[in-house]
Amino acid sequence: MLILGLDPGTATTGYGLVQADDYELCSLCHGVVRTAASDRPEQRLQQIYTGISDILDEYGADAVAVEKLFFNRNVQSAMSVGQARGVILLAAARHGVPVLEYTPSEIKMAVTGHGSAPKQQVQSMIQAVLSMQETPTPDDAADALAVAVCALRHWEWERAVEDGQ
Amino acid sequence: MLILGLDPGTATTGYGLVQADDYELCSLCHGVVRTAASDRPEQRLQQIYTGISDILDEYGADAVAVEKLFFNRNVQSAMSVGQARGVILLAAARHGVPVLEYTPSEIKMAVTGHGSAPKQQVQSMIQAVLSMQETPTPDDAADALAVAVCALRHWEWERAVEDGQ
Repeated sequence: MLILGLDPGTATTGYGLVQADDYELCSLCHGVVRTAASDRPEQRLQQIYTGISDILDEYGADAVAVEKLFFNRNVQSAMSVGQARGVILLAAARHGVPVLEYTPSEIKMAVTGHGSAPKQQVQSMIQAVLSMQETPTPDDAADALAVAVCALRHWEWERAVEDGQ
Repeated sequence: MLILGLDPGTATTGYGLVQADDYELCSLCHGVVRTAASDRPEQRLQQIYTGISDILDEYGADAVAVEKLFFNRNVQSAMSVGQARGVILLAAARHGVPVLEYTPSEIKMAVTGHGSAPKQQVQSMIQAVLSMQETPTPDDAADALAVAVCALRHWEWERAVEDGQ
């Protein structure tokens, strides 16, 4: 099972590709697609679309995982995140990859066992769960790994329930 | 000069293709891309992307015109419009077509001469300016024609200023 976690944003879109093998999780790659504020919005969206499409072309994925639509107080940021999220969902659809969505508290719960865990704790747990030598950086890449781990944990839980039946 | 005006939305994206010939404006086509609420968000975004790409493939355009990011009070609607706007801007970028943006008051001003004209007046003026037999429907298609007319008026004004120099 291979999940591409994504944390969309116009300036920085985080990605983290996590594989599950017999309940062992490992990160195949993680990082960010950065775009320059000096570029036109449509060029920045194309860079994000191309960056994520390239990863899906190279590695494939069983699913793409993203945070559910959040209710930020800042409307302009919601619109900007929405645009980046739109091209990411399109990249998934055009690669025939289903999209899984989780709330921030579902992600924290799956990674740390607590729905209101602080960001620092989520990042330390990601490092431990994925047996990484260092805390993954930057933050957007770590957040993307967290949503991928959440998706894999949910998949493991569902498999465990099915096995138990 | 051929402008594709667009009014993005996840459920309904309006489009209107307007041509300027010697200061005469005419609509080549207008309508909406509708998506079903029962479809997954990424499928709906793909339908919008494909619908707009098909128009750009068939007719081409010198520019795509959209309303500037607006500051709606509803954050969820901003996120949803943002996603649709993202795939539309991507379609323009992938077709090498520049994107022009105008505020709602710039659009009303260009179409009616008043920045705070009511919607009804904008629609009547669009019908008159484009010499259409009937008021264009639905509203999202009329709004898309309005932003295209706005873009063409701005282009005419710029041309007139250049000619006058």
